[in-house]
Amino acid sequence: MSNRMWGGRFATGPDAIMEEINASIDFDQRLWRQDIRGSRAHAAMLGETGILTQEDVAAIDAGLKQVEADIEAGSFTFSRALEDVHMNVESNLKDRIGAAAGRLHTGRSRNDQVATDMKLWVRDTLDQLDEQMADLQLALAQKAETYAGAVMPGFTHLQSAQPVTFGHHLLAYVEMLGRDRGRVADARRRLNESPLGAAALAGTSFPIDREMTARALGFDRPTANSLDSVSDRDFVLETLAAASICAMHLSRLAEEIVLWATPQFGFVRLSDAFSTGSSIMPQKRNPDAAELVRGKAGRVFGHLQAMLTMMKGLPLTYSKDMQEDKEGTFDALQTLSLCLAATAGMVRDMQPDLKVMKRAAGLGYATATDLADWLVRVLKMPFRDAHHVTGRLVGIASEKKVGLEKLSLAEMQAVEPQITEAVFAVLGVDQSVRSRTSYGGTAPNNVRRQARRWLKKLATTKA
Amino acid sequence: MSNRMWGGRFATGPDAIMEEINASIDFDQRLWRQDIRGSRAHAAMLGETGILTQEDVAAIDAGLKQVEADIEAGSFTFSRALEDVHMNVESNLKDRIGAAAGRLHTGRSRNDQVATDMKLWVRDTLDQLDEQMADLQLALAQKAETYAGAVMPGFTHLQSAQPVTFGHHLLAYVEMLGRDRGRVADARRRLNESPLGAAALAGTSFPIDREMTARALGFDRPTANSLDSVSDRDFVLETLAAASICAMHLSRLAEEIVLWATPQFGFVRLSDAFSTGSSIMPQKRNPDAAELVRGKAGRVFGHLQAMLTMMKGLPLTYSKDMQEDKEGTFDALQTLSLCLAATAGMVRDMQPDLKVMKRAAGLGYATATDLADWLVRVLKMPFRDAHHVTGRLVGIASEKKVGLEKLSLAEMQAVEPQITEAVFAVLGVDQSVRSRTSYGGTAPNNVRRQARRWLKKLATTKA
Amino acid sequence: MSNRMWGGRFATGPDAIMEEINASIDFDQRLWRQDIRGSRAHAAMLGETGILTQEDVAAIDAGLKQVEADIEAGSFTFSRALEDVHMNVESNLKDRIGAAAGRLHTGRSRNDQVATDMKLWVRDTLDQLDEQMADLQLALAQKAETYAGAVMPGFTHLQSAQPVTFGHHLLAYVEMLGRDRGRVADARRRLNESPLGAAALAGTSFPIDREMTARALGFDRPTANSLDSVSDRDFVLETLAAASICAMHLSRLAEEIVLWATPQFGFVRLSDAFSTGSSIMPQKRNPDAAELVRGKAGRVFGHLQAMLTMMKGLPLTYSKDMQEDKEGTFDALQTLSLCLAATAGMVRDMQPDLKVMKRAAGLGYATATDLADWLVRVLKMPFRDAHHVTGRLVGIASEKKVGLEKLSLAEMQAVEPQITEAVFAVLGVDQSVRSRTSYGGTAPNNVRRQARRWLKKLATTKA
Amino acid sequence: MSNRMWGGRFATGPDAIMEEINASIDFDQRLWRQDIRGSRAHAAMLGETGILTQEDVAAIDAGLKQVEADIEAGSFTFSRALEDVHMNVESNLKDRIGAAAGRLHTGRSRNDQVATDMKLWVRDTLDQLDEQMADLQLALAQKAETYAGAVMPGFTHLQSAQPVTFGHHLLAYVEMLGRDRGRVADARRRLNESPLGAAALAGTSFPIDREMTARALGFDRPTANSLDSVSDRDFVLETLAAASICAMHLSRLAEEIVLWATPQFGFVRLSDAFSTGSSIMPQKRNPDAAELVRGKAGRVFGHLQAMLTMMKGLPLTYSKDMQEDKEGTFDALQTLSLCLAATAGMVRDMQPDLKVMKRAAGLGYATATDLADWLVRVLKMPFRDAHHVTGRLVGIASEKKVGLEKLSLAEMQAVEPQITEAVFAVLGVDQSVRSRTSYGGTAPNNVRRQARRWLKKLATTKA
Repeated sequence: MSNRMWGGRFATGPDAIMEEINASIDFDQRLWRQDIRGSRAHAAMLGETGILTQEDVAAIDAGLKQVEADIEAGSFTFSRALEDVHMNVESNLKDRIGAAAGRLHTGRSRNDQVATDMKLWVRDTLDQLDEQMADLQLALAQKAETYAGAVMPGFTHLQSAQPVTFGHHLLAYVEMLGRDRGRVADARRRLNESPLGAAALAGTSFPIDREMTARALGFDRPTANSLDSVSDRDFVLETLAAASICAMHLSRLAEEIVLWATPQFGFVRLSDAFSTGSSIMPQKRNPDAAELVRGKAGRVFGHLQAMLTMMKGLPLTYSKDMQEDKEGTFDALQTLSLCLAATAGMVRDMQPDLKVMKRAAGLGYATATDLADWLVRVLKMPFRDAHHVTGRLVGIASEKKVGLEKLSLAEMQAVEPQITEAVFAVLGVDQSVRSRTSYGGTAPNNVRRQARRWLKKLATTKA
Repeated sequence: MSNRMWGGRFATGPDAIMEEINASIDFDQRLWRQDIRGSRAHAAMLGETGILTQEDVAAIDAGLKQVEADIEAGSFTFSRALEDVHMNVESNLKDRIGAAAGRLHTGRSRNDQVATDMKLWVRDTLDQLDEQMADLQLALAQKAETYAGAVMPGFTHLQSAQPVTFGHHLLAYVEMLGRDRGRVADARRRLNESPLGAAALAGTSFPIDREMTARALGFDRPTANSLDSVSDRDFVLETLAAASICAMHLSRLAEEIVLWATPQFGFVRLSDAFSTGSSIMPQKRNPDAAELVRGKAGRVFGHLQAMLTMMKGLPLTYSKDMQEDKEGTFDALQTLSLCLAATAGMVRDMQPDLKVMKRAAGLGYATATDLADWLVRVLKMPFRDAHHVTGRLVGIASEKKVGLEKLSLAEMQAVEPQITEAVFAVLGVDQSVRSRTSYGGTAPNNVRRQARRWLKKLATTKA
Repeated sequence: MSNRMWGGRFATGPDAIMEEINASIDFDQRLWRQDIRGSRAHAAMLGETGILTQEDVAAIDAGLKQVEADIEAGSFTFSRALEDVHMNVESNLKDRIGAAAGRLHTGRSRNDQVATDMKLWVRDTLDQLDEQMADLQLALAQKAETYAGAVMPGFTHLQSAQPVTFGHHLLAYVEMLGRDRGRVADARRRLNESPLGAAALAGTSFPIDREMTARALGFDRPTANSLDSVSDRDFVLETLAAASICAMHLSRLAEEIVLWATPQFGFVRLSDAFSTGSSIMPQKRNPDAAELVRGKAGRVFGHLQAMLTMMKGLPLTYSKDMQEDKEGTFDALQTLSLCLAATAGMVRDMQPDLKVMKRAAGLGYATATDLADWLVRVLKMPFRDAHHVTGRLVGIASEKKVGLEKLSLAEMQAVEPQITEAVFAVLGVDQSVRSRTSYGGTAPNNVRRQARRWLKKLATTKA
Repeated sequence: MSNRMWGGRFATGPDAIMEEINASIDFDQRLWRQDIRGSRAHAAMLGETGILTQEDVAAIDAGLKQVEADIEAGSFTFSRALEDVHMNVESNLKDRIGAAAGRLHTGRSRNDQVATDMKLWVRDTLDQLDEQMADLQLALAQKAETYAGAVMPGFTHLQSAQPVTFGHHLLAYVEMLGRDRGRVADARRRLNESPLGAAALAGTSFPIDREMTARALGFDRPTANSLDSVSDRDFVLETLAAASICAMHLSRLAEEIVLWATPQFGFVRLSDAFSTGSSIMPQKRNPDAAELVRGKAGRVFGHLQAMLTMMKGLPLTYSKDMQEDKEGTFDALQTLSLCLAATAGMVRDMQPDLKVMKRAAGLGYATATDLADWLVRVLKMPFRDAHHVTGRLVGIASEKKVGLEKLSLAEMQAVEPQITEAVFAVLGVDQSVRSRTSYGGTAPNNVRRQARRWLKKLATTKA
C-alpha cells in the first residue's frame, strides 16, 4: 500500500510543483465579488477621466456584470492555469468583449488590485462579525435582565469568593464584546483607504482620479504612498489581533459552560442542540460546542502568529510571501464567525439551575467579607480587628459545620460584644448582593439597569 | 562540578519553591509610581465621601508621599516576604502612620488595585511609545524631504521593478508608523476606564465614588461591571498586538538596511555608532543594530502569543495565572522602545550613496513599463500590443547589453514605425519618476509635498 | 511627573542606545562557567598540537582557573563596555597573564565560541531538567502505588464517563513525562557535536585537533560543516519544543488540581505550602501554585515561537539576530524548572478525599457501559440491543433517582428477562474498575503493576 | 448586495451551526485508509481471541475491503450527518454485512480509534517527509560535489567575511536536513505505540489482545496507560515542532535564493520553472517559489502554536477540543511537503554564476584574516600585533582602491619588514579556501570528501 498522500502529484515534475505552490485560485476565488466591484469602479473612473472611451467602459461594465451573474449562478469555471481570481475574471471578460478588456488594466496592476480586493473583503467581513458580536451581546443582555437577581458564587481562583448574580456575570461578557466591537470598528476605520491606482508600486503617469474610485468603493480616501499601498497588510494583522482577543473571550465563556455543565457544578443544563449524548447514558450531555469554541481559540491565535511571522523582515514592496495572507485570514475569520454563532446559540438555549447556583453561593463562608465590612462600617472597627473577629466567627461556624448566618447572636457576642442583631442582615447571600451598590457592583438593581442600558443601545445600533 | 544553575535553590523545600513561583515583587515593583498614585486618589475619595476622616486621609497622603520620595531616592527596600508592590507599599506606610494605613484598603482590594496600576503603567508607556514613534516619523520625513528626488530602484520580489525616489521609499514607513500611532491612540482610549472600586470582584457596600477616583487618575470613566474590571486584560493584549505590528514594520526597515549596507547593494553607509567594525578589516561595517531590531520582532510577537495563551479559557474572575501578564509586557514594550530609538538613530545617521542607487534604478530595464505606457497613451496602442512591442525592444537592447534609452530611433521604428523621438523622454529614470504624478505616486513633487505635510503635522502634534 | 520609564536613558544619544541594544553581558554572563570550560579545553589542545607553547598553555590554564574562582566567589566585575562574557573573561585573563591571553583565540572566533558555550549550557540544563522530570515521575508513581485502587470518576468532556482509579490517573502523567524525558534525551544526543574550531565560519588554517576539544568537553564528535556550526541554533529550538510540550503536560495537571480543589469537586485538599488563604476565610485555599504553572505554559510557548520567528529567513552564517537566542531560552528553561519543582511539591503534598472521589465515580450512571458490556459478553446480545436495554434501565433508575445497582432484579427482568443476579457484580464502581484488566486498563492490579514498574525503573536510572 | 459570506448558513438555526462546528467528516475523511487498516486488525484480533466468531470476522474483513475499494475508486459518498470517518465507514459496513458490523466495535471506542488512525496517518506522513528530505539532501549534495571548489563569499551579518566554496555552503543545508531527519525518526519511534484497545478511557473487560493489534499495525507495543492513550497528542506536537524547524531551514535557503537572484548579487539564475517573468521585461525573474517557501514557514509555526494552545490546560481524558488536532496538522505537513518539493526543484535547476561569485568573494578584503593568520603562524607575531599590521595594510590597499594581493612586497615591508614573498600565497581567495583544512573547514578537498560521504550515505539509506 502506498504511503503517498499527496507527494505523488509532484512526481510529474517542476511544473506540477510550481502550479501547486504558486496558483492561488483555489482560495482567492473567494474574492470574486470584491474583484469585480473594484474593476467596475476603476472602469467608470477611466471613462470619467477620458482615459478610456465611454464605449469601452460600457462594454467592460456590461461584461463584468455578466461575469458576476455567471459566478453567482455557479456556471463559471475557475481555471488553475489562470492562477488567480484577477486573471480568471479578466480572461473571461476578454472572451466576452475582446480588446477592451485589456484596457481595463490601465493605471493599475495586480499589486494594487489584490490589496483593494482583500481590503474590501476584510471590511465586508468585519461588518458581518460586528453584527454577530452584537447578536451575542443581545443574547447575553436579555438573559442578564432575566437573571439580574439570581444569586451565584463569584469566583476568584475558581474558588467561591463572594456572591454575585448570574445576570452580573453574563454582563461581564457583554462588556468584553463591547470592547471587541470597538476594535472591529477601529480596524475598519483604519483600513478604509483605497490602494487602487497605486499601480505596481510607483503610481502611474495616466491621469487617473483615485478619489473617485475611493468614493465609489466606500473608502474614506485614497492611500497617500504608493509603495506602502501595495506592501501594507496591517489591516489583516489588526483584524486577526481583534479576532484573537474576541476568540479568547469566547474561550473563557466556553470554559465556564464546560465547568457549569459538570455534575459537580450543575449550574446549567445545555440544550440538545449544542451537546451530544450517549445512547446508553441518556442523562449525559457532552458540551461539544463549548469545547470546540474553546479549542478553536488556539487556531485563531495561530493564524495571527503565522501572518506576523510571514510579514517579518520583508523588504518593500510586494513579495510573493504576501500571497500567504489569504488562507489563514479566511480560516481565522470564518472560525470566529462560527464560534460567535455557536456561543449565541448556547447562551440562548442554556437553562440555569437557580437553586444549585444559590446554594453554591452560600458555601465557603462567601459572606465573610460582608461581615467584616459590617464590623468596619457599623462598629467602626479597624480593618485588621474586623478581619480577626470575622476569622474567629468563621472558625466557630466551620467547626459546627454551619453557615455564618446559623450562629446565634450570643455566640457572636462571645467573640465581639458590640455585635447586634442587625448583623444578620448582611450574612445571607441575597443581602450580600443587594448591598453591593457601588457603580458596577452586583446589586440586582445595578445589574438590571446595566442590562437595560445595553438592550437599549443594541436596539438602537441594530436598527 | 555542579550542573545546578538554579535548581539548588529549590532543594530547601516547598517554601523556597512557593516564594520563587508566587512572589511578584521582583518585577511588579516597577509599578510603584502607579500604585502610589492610585492609593492617593483612593484615599482622597474616601475622605470626600466621609468614609475616612480627614485626619486619616491627611496621614495617608503624607505617608504615601514619603514612601514615594524614598523609592525615588533609592532608599526603599522591597521585601520578597511581602510578595508584591501593593503589600510592600502598604506595609511601609503602616510602619510610618500606623492603623490608618489599614483603612486605606476600604472599598477596594488587590484585584482592582493591580488592574488599576497595570492600566496606568500601560497608559504611561503608550504615551512614551507614541512620542518615540513620532520622533522616528520625524527622522524619516526629514530625510524624505531631503531625498524627495533621489532616484533608487523600486523593488517587487526584491527585483528592481520601476524607479522610485528614496524619499518616497522612506515615507512609506512614515505611513506605517502613522497607523501604528493610530493603534496606540485607540488602545489608550479603550483602556481608559478605571477599575478602581470594583473591589475583589463584586463591588462594595461602602458608599465610594468611583467617578471621583476615575477623574483624579485621568480615566474617562469608571468601568461598568465589577467582574469584568478585575478579569480584563484586553488592554495588555491590544497593546501587545499594536506593538507587534510596529515591531514588524521596524523589522522590514531593518532588513532593508542590512541589504542596503551589503557591498552588493551599497545603497547606504551606516554610521559607526550603529554598526561594529573589525580591527583588521576597517572598511567592514556589520549592521548590528539593524539585525537586532529585526531579530527582536520575534520576541515581541512571542510575548503577545504568551499572553493570549495565558488568558485562553480562564474562568472569571481573577486567577493567579494573570500575574503572568507583567514580565512579558514589560519586556515587549521595553524592547519596542529600544528598537524605535535604535531605528531613529540609524535613520538619522545613514548616508545614502545616491550614485549607486540611481545606477541601480536604471538596471534591468526598469523603465520598460514607462515605454509600454507611452505606447498606450501616445500611440493609443492596445495594451497587449504595447507589451509585445516593448518586449521586443527590451530583447534587442538586452542582446546589445545596453539600456533602452541607448537604442536608436531607427532601431525602435524597425519594431514599431509610429514611435517618435518623444519616446526618449520617458526612458530615463528621472523622467520615469517625474511622470508618476498620480496621487501617492513617486513624482518628486508629490514626495516633497507629502514629506512637508508630515513635517507640519508632526510639528503640530509634538508642540 | 515624568512618564519616562526607560526612555530617558536614550536621550544621551546613539552610544547609549547602541550599548543598550548591542551589549549582551547582562544576560550572557550566565555562560561564564561554560565559556571557561571551553577555553581551557581549547588551550590544552593548542598546546598538544604545538600551536602554542606549553608555557603559554600553563599560564592560560592557571589564569582561567583564577578567573573562574573569582566569578564563583562573586568578586569579579562584569563590564558592559566589554560587551559580552567572552570579552570580559578574555580581558581579565589578559590583565593577569599578558600577551599569552591573546594567543588563546588562535584557531577559533567568537562565532564558534558562543555556539559552544550555548550548547554546553543547554546540555547542562537538559540534564538538570531530566532529573527534575524524573523526580516528578517518582512523586507521581509513589502516589499512584498508594492509590492504585482508589476509585474516582474517569472523565471525557469533563463529564464523568467511567470509573477509574486515582493511581491510574496519576500514572497517565508518568507516561507523559516519560515521553518528555525521551525528547530531552534525543535533543541532548543530537546537539552533542562540538562547533569549537569552526572559527569565524570557514574553518582555519591552523592545524587544530577538533576531535580532542570535542572529547574534552564531552561532545560525541566535532560538527562536520563549519558554516552550519556557527549558524545552527536547532538545539535551542528543539529544546524549547520539548520544554513546551512538557509545560503543556504540567498545565493539564495544574488545571485538574485547580478543578479538584474547588468546593464543587472537592477531590483534593492542597497543602498550605502551595496555596494561599484568606485571613477571614480560613477554610479557603487558593491554588496559586497550580494556577501559575498553568499560566506559565503560555510563556514557554511564546519563547519557542519567538526563536522560530527570529531564525526564519536568516541567511548564513552568523547574524546578530542570533544574539536573541539567549534571554528567551534562559527564561523558558528556568520557568520549566520552577514549574517542575512546584508540581512535584504539590503532588507530594496533596491529600485526596477518597470518599468524595468514590461517590462522584458512581454518579451519572458511570457503569452503564459495564452493564451493556455484560449483556454482550454474557447474554451474547448484539451491541445495539444491549445499548437499547441499558438505556431503558438507566431511564428507569434516573426517574427513581437511584443508581443502577439499586434497581431490583425484577425491575431489570421486566426490561430484559434473561438478566440474572450475576449482573450486580458489574454495577458497582469497584467491580467496574476491577473488570478493566486489558493491558493498560484501570484494574487496580494493573495499576499497581505499572506503578511498581516505574518505581523500579526510576530507582535504577536515578542511582 | 449581501455581505454574507458564510453567515447565511447559520440563519437556519442551531442545527446548522452545530453541524458546521461539530462534524469532522469534511477533513477527517482523509484518515479513511488508516481507519480501515485499524478496523481490520482489530477484527482479526477479536477473532483470534474468540471474542467474535470467525464468520463475523470474515464478513467484517470482506466488507471493509469493499468499503476500501469503493473509496479508492471514488464511488463512496461521505455523509455529514454521520459526522466523522469512523461512523461513515461503520455505517456503510453495516449496510453491507448487517449486525456483525456493530460487533466490530467490541473492546474499543471512538476515542482509541481516532488516536490510532491519527497516529498511523502521522507515521505514514513522517515516512514520506523523510523521503522528501533525503531527496533534497541528494540534490544539495550532488550540487555540492560539483561545486566543491567554486569560491563564493562566506557571509556574516550579510557582509562578506571570508571566502568559502559554494559546495561547502550547500552542504551546510545537508547537515541541517540531517538533523531534521533525525527529529523525524525520533518522533516516529516515540509515537509508535498502539492506543487501540484503550477503549473509551479505562480499558475494557473483554479479553482483547492489544499486543496482537499493535504488531499487525506495525506498532512496537501497545500503550501502557489507557487514560494517557486517548488524551495524548504529543505525537502531533512533536511532529509539528520537527516540521517547524525544517520549515525554518528551508526559509533560510529560500531567503538566500531570493538574495542571490537579485541583479545586485547575481549569484544564481533561477529556472523558468520556479520563477515568473514579465511580458515586457523578459530578463526579469521573480523568485516566486522561493518567496512562497519563505513565507510558508510562518504558516507551519502558526499551526504548532495553535496545537500547543489548544492542548494547554485540558483536563484528562478526551475533550472535543482535540478534534482541532487535524486540520492544522494536515495543512502544516502538506505545506512542508510542498516546500520540500519546491526547494529540491529549485536547487536542481539553479545555475550559479561562478565568475560573479568569485569576484564577490575577493571584495572587502575578505582574506585579511588569512594575512593576519599568516603573520601569527609564520612570523610568530602576537595576535594583537598581527591584527594591527593587517589593519594598516588593508588601509593602504583601501586608499589605493586595490585588493591586498595587489600591494607590492615593498609596500608591505614598509609596514612590517619581516613579510616575505610567501605571503602572497594566502592573499588570493583560492589560496584562502584551500588553506582551511581543519575538520569541517571549507578547503575544497574537505568539501568534496563531505559531499561524497553524504552521497554514499544517501545511496545506502534510499536503497
